[in-house]
Order: sequence, then structure tokens, then C-alpha cells
Amino acid sequence: MAATEASGDDVRCVRLSAERARTLLADVDTLLFDCDGVLWRGETAVPGAPEALTALRARGKRLGFITNNSSKTREAYAEKLQRLGFGGPSGPNAGREIFGTAYCTALYLRQRLGGAPTPKAYVLGSAALAAELEAVGVTCVGVGPEPLQGEGPSAWLDAPLEPDVRAVVVGFDPHFSYMKLTKAVRYLQQPSCLLVGTNMDNRLPLENGRFIAGTGCLVRAVEMAAQRQADIIGKPSRFIFDCVSQEYGINPERTVMVGDRLDTDILLGVTCGLKTVLTLTGVSTLGDVKSNQESDCMSRKKMVPDFYVDSIADLLPALQG
Amino acid sequence: MAATEASGDDVRCVRLSAERARTLLADVDTLLFDCDGVLWRGETAVPGAPEALTALRARGKRLGFITNNSSKTREAYAEKLQRLGFGGPSGPNAGREIFGTAYCTALYLRQRLGGAPTPKAYVLGSAALAAELEAVGVTCVGVGPEPLQGEGPSAWLDAPLEPDVRAVVVGFDPHFSYMKLTKAVRYLQQPSCLLVGTNMDNRLPLENGRFIAGTGCLVRAVEMAAQRQADIIGKPSRFIFDCVSQEYGINPERTVMVGDRLDTDILLGVTCGLKTVLTLTGVSTLGDVKSNQESDCMSRKKMVPDFYVDSIADLLPALQG
Repeated sequence: MAATEASGDDVRCVRLSAERARTLLADVDTLLFDCDGVLWRGETAVPGAPEALTALRARGKRLGFITNNSSKTREAYAEKLQRLGFGGPSGPNAGREIFGTAYCTALYLRQRLGGAPTPKAYVLGSAALAAELEAVGVTCVGVGPEPLQGEGPSAWLDAPLEPDVRAVVVGFDPHFSYMKLTKAVRYLQQPSCLLVGTNMDNRLPLENGRFIAGTGCLVRAVEMAAQRQADIIGKPSRFIFDCVSQEYGINPERTVMVGDRLDTDILLGVTCGLKTVLTLTGVSTLGDVKSNQESDCMSRKKMVPDFYVDSIADLLPALQG
Repeated sequence: MAATEASGDDVRCVRLSAERARTLLADVDTLLFDCDGVLWRGETAVPGAPEALTALRARGKRLGFITNNSSKTREAYAEKLQRLGFGGPSGPNAGREIFGTAYCTALYLRQRLGGAPTPKAYVLGSAALAAELEAVGVTCVGVGPEPLQGEGPSAWLDAPLEPDVRAVVVGFDPHFSYMKLTKAVRYLQQPSCLLVGTNMDNRLPLENGRFIAGTGCLVRAVEMAAQRQADIIGKPSRFIFDCVSQEYGINPERTVMVGDRLDTDILLGVTCGLKTVLTLTGVSTLGDVKSNQESDCMSRKKMVPDFYVDSIADLLPALQG
């Protein structure tokens, strides 16, 4: 089960001992963290995690938080970090460290729809996602429940559409319905209408091993009906890292990505040339690492971190020296 | 654009002239037809199609109707065939010629859940689908709207489940919702609970080039969240042909499959060793055939029919000789 401990050029996924952590941190300016399963689970901080982040800040390291969750604004994340003891800026700068898919989707739409006089999006997602889009000037329609209107297919197709919708944005949407799917596909028949998915996660893990269906399931349904491929914002798509990079001016070689999922966090880090650390407080296990290492599939072989820790609290000894 | 007209061993997709049709029909006992886009579009029969079927019946040919549509019972289809002039048995035998995915899903569940004392299924689908399942003794739960219950993920997961659900059946369900997806995935966490999809069609074509999202979009969402692969009943899955074969005692070499879709009807026919005829009154075009013929992908190369007709009315001259 245990991943390789020995050293050597090709060795991946070694335990990040205090000594190795000291060496790693000496070469690093910026640490990017996933949130759920890394810093906290639900409303409970991972023990020792707030202290580890406080010590990193004290050493002058720059921190960033990259999350695929599209259900919270930057401000809501900043407030949670503060509340659970992870610190970070407050006041008008609160949220500056947060790169969630709601915010990054807004950056993407601003980039792609910048020329449109009144950009408008049909949003399958939360009020928080809509709030981030509205903040960059994109008018949002469709948030909330949308029950079946009319009797039968023809009537469903006759339900009125908003004019000038230039993007369909699919995020986490507990109000997802067949009627919304129908409308999304109708907007997407306009080839110039963008299809954007906040992320492709198949599941959203909760506490105690429970989970609910993730945004990826909803994106796939829309993609299949529309026969279009969505532009994906979240990890492991490079776009979310480009957002951090642009705001932080990052040197990938001096940056670490810390996460609990091989298929999103670690793959993003590997793709973008960052150093990678898997923490075992969340979704992926060392068994998953091993089966990726042994896979004959190139895309899975990439999903192996440089290092692993039982918890990010394991960084503390290296910071207290 | 035109597919090959010349003859030869490897030649596929030739126009079914009256002469070729006469030769073909002489070697054939049974003709299987898709319905929508072949016999009718919406509520309008394809001109000449009822006469062609009447002439085939008069020549003693056995007819069968294979449809992926899960929204109608066998009886409802038989009634539509009669109403639009296609004939067929009435009375207690009405529906005997119809192999729809609602009926065939019922056969599948009877086969797989036969040993269970009180088989029960969670049905994302129509009342007609449920009626076919109930007819073979499967109790159905879940049909109709299912709005979001409770505030937030934990509450959604706490919504009560029915005991002893042994299958999740995904058909065409205009009441599909995130809450239904959540429940489906919870039932499927029991590894013995079957996941059955009536079909994988990405779109359901309506009249005038309009379409709505097909059942496949809903199946994919459930598959992705549950991390399970569904057992698929409809075309191009072999199971639906096995249902016909079992009831009719079919000799594949003396059977023709007539359809308007290369990826379902024609692929089913090729897979099952039937003769295949594409009719151009529905979804697929000769351009689609050509790009399949020229594809370097083996799975697409298979989606080429032996013959094509502009409409099944083209069979008439061969039958009037």
C-alpha cells in the first residue's frame, strides 16, 4: 500500500518528512490549497491545519485557495477561512486569496463576452454563482426552480426564452430539472452561445463518507443533449490556474499545489508544472496513487503527486524549526 | 453525396430499386421497423407508408415494430398504428407486434429480478413505463415530480427511501430533477441494485427539425454520479432484438431492419446479422452514411446499411408487381 519512500530521480509520491518539507519550503514562494478535505471537512477544520497555515503566513509564504465549488462567493469563502481560524485578509481585500469556480467563471465570461454590450447568461447554478457573474457585468437569468411548463414536448419548446443570452453556465444546481435542460439546449442551438461548466466533478463529498451528485453529471447531460463540449473552468482545467497566475504573477517552479484529489488537484498541479502534495484527509488514498502508478494509461500515470502527508498539519514541524 | 450505386461484394448502402426490393423481399420472412421518422413523424403518417405495410402484410410478411421510446405502452403503440392506417392485430392481441423499451425493460426486470418475492423499482420515467413494469409484477415508485426536499445536502440525503428497491430504471422523464438523481444514486449504493436505462438516445426528434433532450442524457447523469454503467435495453443494444427473437423465433438472415438512424436502427441490424435498410424520412442522411464509410473508426464503419430508400413508400412498386 505504501508509496515509494526511497529517493531517486523518477521517484514520486514520497512522504513529506519534516526534513523534506524544510527543503521544499525553502524553494517555494506560493502554496495553493484546495479547501474541502484539505483545510476542513464540512464545518470542522482539520486539526492542526489552521496552525500550519498561520505558520506559513508567518514565514512570508503567499497562500491561495483553489476550489471547484461554485456555490459560494469569494467573500463567503474568506469569511469561512476566518471563522475556522485560517486567517487571511479582511475588509475590502477579503476574498483576494480565493479562486473559486464561481469567481473564475466570471473572469472567463468577462474575457469571452467582453465585447457584448449587455452580456447575459442562462445560469444553472446557485445565487452565489450568479452574484459573481453579475459583479463583472453579466446579467443572469434562470437561477432557482424551473418546473415543467405546459403539456408535452411542443409546449416545453414553446416556453419563452430570454433574448440575447450569450452563454449557458452549468454549475452546481440542486434545482436542475428537465425543463432547465430543455431551455439550456435551446439557447445552445445558437452556435455563438457559449457552454461553460464550472467543473466536472462527478461527486460532491460530504462528511462521513456521504456524497451527492456533482456538477459534472449536470454538465454531461447538457453536453450530450446539445452535442457540444463545455469549456470547463475548474480543476484540472488550466484556466483556473491561469486566473491565479495572472493575479499573483506566479513562478510555477516555486509553487506548490496541495490537494486531496488526484484527478483534480494533483492533475492540475502536474499539468501546470507545480510541485504537488497529496493530503490524505479527503477523497484519494495511497491505494489510488499506487493504482495510478501501475496503470498503463498515460492520463492516469500523470495523477501522481511528488509528496504526500497524512494531513497538512504535518507541515508544522518543518515550520517550527 | 450519393452512396455507391454499383454492385459488388463489399458494396454497402445501395439504393433499393424496385428490382432489388423484389429480390430482397423474396429472401425475407420478417421486417422490423422503427416507428418515429420511418412510419410517421409526430401524428402524421409518412405518405405511402401505410400502403406499403398493408402490401407487406398481404404478401404474408411478418412485421415487428422496435422503438426506443419508453413513454408509451404496447397497447398505446398498437392503437396509434391502427389510427394512422398501418393495421395490425386488435383485441387481446393488440400490441403483440410492438417491442418498445417500456415493454422490453419489463422483460429484462422479470428476468433479472425473477427470484425476488416483491420486486420493486425506482422509476425515473413515465406512467406508461411503470404500467409495463407493473404488468410483470414489478412495483414502481418515484413516477412524477419530485421537488427538492429540505435545506441543503444533508437534508436531501435524509429524505426517506422506499425499502427493498432492487432496480433503478431510467427512461424518458420530463420530471427529472436533482432530487431524483440524488435518490437514484442512494438506491444504487446498494451494489445489488440494478441500474437499467431504456435507451441512450441523446435527442428525441420532434417535427420540423425540433428536438428535446433524450433519455441518454439522463442515464449519463445517473451513471456518472453512481459510478456505475447502466444495462441498456433499447437499440443498438442486442437485448431488444433478443426480445423480438424470442417471441417471433427469428432467422436473422431472413429478417430486415428498417430505420432512420444509423447509430441505433442500422447498428442494431448490423450487430444482429440482419439485412438493413435506411430510410431518409428521419434523422440520418446519405452524408452521414458517407462519413461513416470514410471513417477510420471501426465502430462507425459498422453503421452503414445494406440499402437505402427515400421513404418506405419506395417498397410499393416491388409489392405491386
